[in-house]
Formats: sequence, structure tokens, C-alpha cells
Amino acid sequence: MKTLPGFRDLFPEDFARRRYLSGLWREAAGRYGFVEFDGPTLESSELYRKKNSGGEILGQLYEFTDKGDRSVALRPEVTPTLARMVAAKHREYPKPIRWFNVGTCFRYERQQRGRLREFLQFNCDLLGDATPAADAEVVALLIDLLRSFGLGSEHFAIRLSDRSAWHDFLALHGVESACAGEFLNIVDKMEKMPVEKTEELLAPFGIPLATIHQFIASGRIPALDPLLADLEARGLREFVRPDLGVVRGLAYYTGVVFEAFALQGNLRAIAGGGRYDRLLADLSDGSADLPAVGFGVGDAVLLELINEIPAAKSLEEKFLTSVPPVQIYLVIADEKQRAKALGLAQQLRGEGWRLAYPLGPEKVGKQFGTAESLGASHAVVIGSEWPSVTVKYLADRMEQELDHSALAVWLAESKALTS
Amino acid sequence: MKTLPGFRDLFPEDFARRRYLSGLWREAAGRYGFVEFDGPTLESSELYRKKNSGGEILGQLYEFTDKGDRSVALRPEVTPTLARMVAAKHREYPKPIRWFNVGTCFRYERQQRGRLREFLQFNCDLLGDATPAADAEVVALLIDLLRSFGLGSEHFAIRLSDRSAWHDFLALHGVESACAGEFLNIVDKMEKMPVEKTEELLAPFGIPLATIHQFIASGRIPALDPLLADLEARGLREFVRPDLGVVRGLAYYTGVVFEAFALQGNLRAIAGGGRYDRLLADLSDGSADLPAVGFGVGDAVLLELINEIPAAKSLEEKFLTSVPPVQIYLVIADEKQRAKALGLAQQLRGEGWRLAYPLGPEKVGKQFGTAESLGASHAVVIGSEWPSVTVKYLADRMEQELDHSALAVWLAESKALTS
Repeated sequence: MKTLPGFRDLFPEDFARRRYLSGLWREAAGRYGFVEFDGPTLESSELYRKKNSGGEILGQLYEFTDKGDRSVALRPEVTPTLARMVAAKHREYPKPIRWFNVGTCFRYERQQRGRLREFLQFNCDLLGDATPAADAEVVALLIDLLRSFGLGSEHFAIRLSDRSAWHDFLALHGVESACAGEFLNIVDKMEKMPVEKTEELLAPFGIPLATIHQFIASGRIPALDPLLADLEARGLREFVRPDLGVVRGLAYYTGVVFEAFALQGNLRAIAGGGRYDRLLADLSDGSADLPAVGFGVGDAVLLELINEIPAAKSLEEKFLTSVPPVQIYLVIADEKQRAKALGLAQQLRGEGWRLAYPLGPEKVGKQFGTAESLGASHAVVIGSEWPSVTVKYLADRMEQELDHSALAVWLAESKALTS
Repeated sequence: MKTLPGFRDLFPEDFARRRYLSGLWREAAGRYGFVEFDGPTLESSELYRKKNSGGEILGQLYEFTDKGDRSVALRPEVTPTLARMVAAKHREYPKPIRWFNVGTCFRYERQQRGRLREFLQFNCDLLGDATPAADAEVVALLIDLLRSFGLGSEHFAIRLSDRSAWHDFLALHGVESACAGEFLNIVDKMEKMPVEKTEELLAPFGIPLATIHQFIASGRIPALDPLLADLEARGLREFVRPDLGVVRGLAYYTGVVFEAFALQGNLRAIAGGGRYDRLLADLSDGSADLPAVGFGVGDAVLLELINEIPAAKSLEEKFLTSVPPVQIYLVIADEKQRAKALGLAQQLRGEGWRLAYPLGPEKVGKQFGTAESLGASHAVVIGSEWPSVTVKYLADRMEQELDHSALAVWLAESKALTS
């Protein structure tokens, strides 16, 4: 019995890392006034096939027919679900809408490092504002998010581009706008493809590769000026780089697009996003015409990056050791007092303490060993002295005898010591 | 474009309720020393088909063939995944293992109130201890969990039973143990089935329905005595009721089984669980022979129950209003100061405040309206007085002018006021 390839078992030590990730994601979103939503894991396939995600995602769908003969798919990304939900109820929410999601997505990808078939993704989307001020909020949030993991401008940068610059370029070279999507998909893959392959794919468009390289190298994207000025005012200009080489692979992007990437190692993409001003109108047949901008970050690359950067790793380790499974361990030194111990366990848990005790008779020394391995700061020894108990502070073995009825108050006052 | 039947869109107001639920689930598990794990959403179908879940779950599987020709299924429950994971690595963990999971599960159920096709489930499992002390820990945790939602002994009870009592009963009536599973499935469904149907299904076993009713009414389950004594010592005896009528529908249960149910309305089952001492050995062909006991709670029935019980509803509402989307709203009274406002926004978010501001020019009155609708406690007015700003405490419109450089400290000191 094995896990399917590309899927993960998250043992408690793995899950603690996930909690660290998703906790910081949620905190960053919260500081920007974003609120959390979620949608179904399974959607009608049509949601992804109808004027949507496009590109390679459609070939990677986990798609099947359910027992009710519906064509369904596990979500490969959350944006179409978000667009569907906002389109249905947008009149009930003041604009701009600031929503985020932490959810699992599924893509049948070729197996490779950092690519999984089920992954956790953080999505942030701002809807109902078409200005660069909205783009800036979202890009700034992404920068702050990455900084909260201990990553600095020496570790990552955000390449900013604008698809409208590419549309102007295509118009100039006589390419019809209906073919823009196909063309941009080639540009998106260009950096990872052999030159010959790129030239072959570009042939039908009649634009030489050199012309494209020249355009990218020109670097001027005037449409980005207000966004850059906004980021400058926030003191975040150093994190972004205008770069026409970024176009993103999803078909629904319309204007600004961006990609965060790691500056060390093989320049992996950490996150990506952009503006999709027509998706809601398309999905709702025009009834909800809201501009939108957002981004997504997956968990796998971020976890790898944290492992590679000492400052980030040490922040993570600080978090991982900060919440031990147990705060108090009851040592039952005399089995005759077990019923008393159970009552005390119940009382202290009721006060909110994380507590464990041996389920059966055990030598006292072994019980202390368990207390330490569970990370308890205090052991409470219950023995023949009942109603007196002995509290041991495990860090220095300092101990104190007191009546069990005074224990809850004593522990509450010692709370500062333990946290 | 619609959500599939039995699936849910969780708009932010719905997601807040989910956060309330999963937050209290996690806190209760933490107080009992349980740590969180998770497994894949998609598993090999074999995991559920091989000596496992059994019963009606197999007929409700979301099952399909993936692009790699594997027979796969969305998890209908988490216990088989847990058993697979623990069987694989149990030597690395001290016993008893106390793990919990909060995860979505999928069952193609007939559409009815409180039954969804994708639902969130809380699972708690204690592995490596076969004694009633372990059963008591898990039952006590379930009781505390339900109490943390404001539910008391007037709202719910836990029916406790033991499958071994049924096995003795069957042996007494000459039914082979291989047929026990099928027989217990009938008993499990009996309360909801017409008498004629039950009698028809029981015919092959040669045990009259009256004999079964008599056995259930006898009520004596001596095997439960140590568990009841343990709960008594904790002060939790009033929450449980020995009741042979409970057998649970899953094929893998071996000993104690239990079911929490609502005492008002139609006595819905809120949670269920039991002992499954052979599942790990079965899944690992004997290499990991660990006894186990656990339970699961779904979100749908619990959310319904909270709605019906005023004490529970008011606890929930207290939580829902305790964390407004935004704490501070920047009112930009003079557009010329927008760049300063952006810098200040960045600084205050860096201090951890949840903050928003208008993305474009807006009348000051409208900005104050937005501040209030987002739940901000403070508005910071940035205008021509810069570098001075005015802080307004929105509850009573008390205001104070101060230099923007002193704002962060001022707000930090006022934190007690706002939370």
C-alpha cells in the first residue's frame, strides 16, 4: 500500500511545516485586509474548458465522469472557482473585494523536483479595481509574504511585465489578436526550450526570434510606471524588475503579469500572477464585469527555498520548536491515585493546558522520559502524598509541593515561564 | 456555471464559520496532546477495497482511472490513510501515537439535509494502546470537543457499545464469525429501516428480530465497566450511555464503538468512532500490529446544531465578530499625500496591523464609511497637515493629532483598547 506518485503523506513533522507556511500566508493576507474563502475541490470540467485556464493545464486535468454522469475535474487552480463565486454574488460585497484562499490543487504533471500532483496553493485576488494601485497592493503583498519567511532582496525578485505591451508588439507585426494566446504561450516557454524548437513554433507568426529578443531587451514598459511609483513610495522598488520576458502561461491574463523567482540556484519561479480583467465577464456571459488582479504561490518550491537559505531555515526552526505537543505531563507515581490523576487531567485541560499522562502503570523514571520527549515544561507528580502534589519545572528540576486544589492557579501564574 | 450538487462554495462569511469549527477542533485535540497530520486527498482505490472500510462507503466512492492507468479514489474517510501511514513508520514514533486530522472527504451520497458529497471531517486516533484507558481518552476528547462549542449534557449524549458483546451473542446463536460484518450492518441500519425489511434481511441468520431487541434492551455490557469508571473519575459519566443498539457501519471496528448524537430534534448522529485493532495488521500484512481507537466528526451536522442551540450560536457569534477584516483604515484626505500614505501603510502593516486604505481618490465621508464597514477600530487621517496625522478612535470619535513618526508607538500602546 503506497501513496500515489506525486502525492504526499504529511507526517506530524511535515504537517508542522505546512502549518508554518499557511500561518504566515494567512497573516500576510490579513495585514492587507484580505479575507479567506474556499470553494469545492471538485468542479464541473466545463469551468476549466470554457474560455478559461487554457494552456497546458487542460492537458493535466484530473478529469472523470461521476456516478451522476457529470463530467467533473479536481481543481487545477482556484482562480476559475473564485471568478465563478464572485460573478454570482458580487453585488453583495463592497468593492474592492479582497479575498484569499489556501487550498489543495491537482495537476497530472510529469514527475520532477518541486512539482507535485497535489499541492497546496495560496491565492490572493483583488477584484473591482482596474487601476495600478490595485496591482501594487497585490505585488506588495507578495513581497511582504516572501519577506515574512526571512527572504530578502538578495534571495528573490519579482519580474514585472505587461501583456498589453505584447499585444501592441503583435499588432505592429500584423499578428491577429485571436492568435495572441498561442504566441504568448511560446514566449512563456522560450526560456526553457531549445532555440530550434522555439524558431519552429514561431515560424507561422512570421516574426524572427531575434526581433522578439530585441523587443524583450528594449525593456521599456511605460504602462508599468504608476505601479513602479507606488512600490517606490512603499520602499519596495528594489524587489521588482520590469522584464518583458515574463508573460505567464494562463490564457486569461490581460494586463500586468508578474513572477517571483529565486535569485540563487536555478532561478526557480516561486509565485506568479497578473491581471485578468475579462474572466468574470466571460464566465458570467457579461452579467458580472469586474476587473481583477491576483497571484498564486505553491508550497513545494517555497519549502525547498526555506531549506536552502539559512536565515529562512532558522526562522522556521524557531517556529517549529515553539509549540511542543504537551505543556504538562502528569506523572502517576502511585497507581492507587489514578482516579485522582484523571480528575486533575480533566481540570487542567479544561483550563486550556495541553496535557498527557501514562495510560497504564509505568516506572516513574520512564514517565519523566516521556514528559521530556513530548516537550512538557512541567511534570506534576501524583503519589501517596495526595491531596498534595509535586510540580517539577523540567528545565532545571526545580520543584515545589502544593495542594492539588492550588495547582491550576499556580500554573496559570507560571505561564509566562513556559511560553 | 454552478457548483456541483452536494458541494459548497464557502464565501468569506461561510469560511469564518469553518475557521471557528476547525479552530476549536484543533484546540481540543491539542489539550489531549494530539498532533496534526494529513494525507493525500486521492488514494489508490485498493486502499478502500482491501479488507477495509466496507459497508456502504464502497458504493459511494468517487473512483476513476487516472492518466497513468491507475485505479484511484477521492478519500471517503481518513482512517485507511492513517493506518497506511502509521503502519509504514510506526517504529519512529513512541507509543501511544496521538494523531488528528482536519481534512475534506468525498462520498457520492444521496442528496439530503446535513449530507454533503464533500465535507470537512475531524479525526482523532490513538494507536498503540489496547486498554480501556485509551478508549476513555478518546471519548473524553470527543465530549470536551462538543462542550467547547457550548453544547452540554442537555444537548448531546454518547452511546457506548462493544462489538465483542455482539460477537458473543452471535456465537451463542450459532452464527459464524465470517458473517458477523453483514449481520452488524443490518443492526446498524435497523433504527432507520421498516421492520419488514429488517426481518427479511435477518432471515438467513435464523435470529428473530425480537431476540435482537431483547438483547439490546438487556443493556448489560460488562466490557465497558473500566471505561465507564475512567469517565466517572473525570466527571464525565453523565455524557455517556451504554447502548448495544450502536454497532457502527464500518467493517473494520473490533471492540468498543460509540456515537455522539443530538438529544433535541431528530436525534441526529454528530460523531462516531470505535476500536479497530486489526486494521493496521491487515493493511501491512502483519508487519505493523498496532491496536487503535478513534473517532470522526463532520462539519455539516455540527454547524446545523450550533444554529439550533442559542448558547452555541452566541458563542459562535462572539468569535465571528472578534476578528474584523481590518483594524486600521487610512483616510487619505489630500491626494497629494498619497505617497506618504503608502509609506505609512507599509510601515504599519510591517508592525503587524491589518490595514486598508482607498485605492483611488474618494470623499472623506465615504472613506470613514468604508473604515466602519470593514470593522476598523481606528482611522488615521492623512492630509495637508502632514507630517502630522489625526487618529480617530471610531467607537467614540475621540481623536488625537500626532506626528506620523510617533504613530506606530501610539497604536502599539492602544492595542489593548482595540482587541
